[in-house]
Amino acid sequence: MVETPIPVLVIGDKNLSSWSMRPWVALHAAGIAFDEVRIKLRTETSKAEILRHSPAGKVPALKLGAVAIGESIAICEWAAENAKTPILPQDPVARAVCRAAGAEMHAGFGALRNECPMDMLARFANHPISDQCLGDITRIDALWNDCRRQWGQGGPYLFGAWSLADAMFAPVVSRFITYDLRVSPAARAYLEVASHHPSYMAWAEGARAEAAI
Amino acid sequence: MVETPIPVLVIGDKNLSSWSMRPWVALHAAGIAFDEVRIKLRTETSKAEILRHSPAGKVPALKLGAVAIGESIAICEWAAENAKTPILPQDPVARAVCRAAGAEMHAGFGALRNECPMDMLARFANHPISDQCLGDITRIDALWNDCRRQWGQGGPYLFGAWSLADAMFAPVVSRFITYDLRVSPAARAYLEVASHHPSYMAWAEGARAEAAI
Repeated sequence: MVETPIPVLVIGDKNLSSWSMRPWVALHAAGIAFDEVRIKLRTETSKAEILRHSPAGKVPALKLGAVAIGESIAICEWAAENAKTPILPQDPVARAVCRAAGAEMHAGFGALRNECPMDMLARFANHPISDQCLGDITRIDALWNDCRRQWGQGGPYLFGAWSLADAMFAPVVSRFITYDLRVSPAARAYLEVASHHPSYMAWAEGARAEAAI
Repeated sequence: MVETPIPVLVIGDKNLSSWSMRPWVALHAAGIAFDEVRIKLRTETSKAEILRHSPAGKVPALKLGAVAIGESIAICEWAAENAKTPILPQDPVARAVCRAAGAEMHAGFGALRNECPMDMLARFANHPISDQCLGDITRIDALWNDCRRQWGQGGPYLFGAWSLADAMFAPVVSRFITYDLRVSPAARAYLEVASHHPSYMAWAEGARAEAAI
């Protein structure tokens, strides 16, 4: 019998790599056993090291035997399919809305991503932002509140129980805290609970451990 | 017994709305019965009309009773879950790679999207493109060839049988033809077969019907 090799998630620095955080917390929250390979980004050898693991030359990548799966949201879907603890809503309509929320994050909010890069351990006051970035923040605030109001009865997360949407927005939670961005009270309550989810805290612990080296 | 209402896909002009094309061909290819509401884009009333159907103010949106699902890739996933003809590969690893290909399209290739907007019925020769756009084309060409080589044995599409990845790239197929962009022979063969898929042709037929009004 051939044993299925344990999946390996190739990631960047935990303090900085927002795209890596998403599938990592998804796999973790889904209760899936996986190994991680962390590649220090922005060094002379980063590119070569990433290419050793991921032909597309990007992190994150999930290695399943000889195949490397790219794209954070696709890895989250793989996590959902292999989850011990479900990370997609059971209700088919809620599940579709959850995927739409995740997809909106996957493709959008470029101003926020550019102007407020993830820097998990840092704290900045009075960080200047553009109107476009403010528009991103306003939209995310509204989206979180819509999800909570319509689908969040069964728990404190965007769709009640913690889900793929919370995974996709985890680095945004981190940014909102790092840059002390102004949000509605309901969004602030979500930030509080999301940043205390065990998988978020486990990733943050990893970021602190990196910094201590 | 309450009858499930037929899903309604809210779309823009078929000639122009690349994001609308993706879920439309996915629903069509999956053999799902649906109604469509077409909203003429770029008129004074477009915005108000879209808002009547989709609170996010964007097309496409899939109305499932009172709920509007946004984001083309999320609607494609809904189509996959409700498909009569499957549109995701059966093999779990192939399925993950298929989703990664779709997600890369969902979030990427901004230069191609900006410089070569979908205009299905038009044909342009010697369309000028930037180096960035050329980079997008090169990456898409490589991605198509990788998918075909590794996963395409069972049929002529990216993952053999037609799939969510073909849905996500359908408007790119249209652009490559409209702007006569230079691609490898293997990619050219894919363009040929993809643009003759029944769902692609049904959408194109709709674009011609619009133009005839």
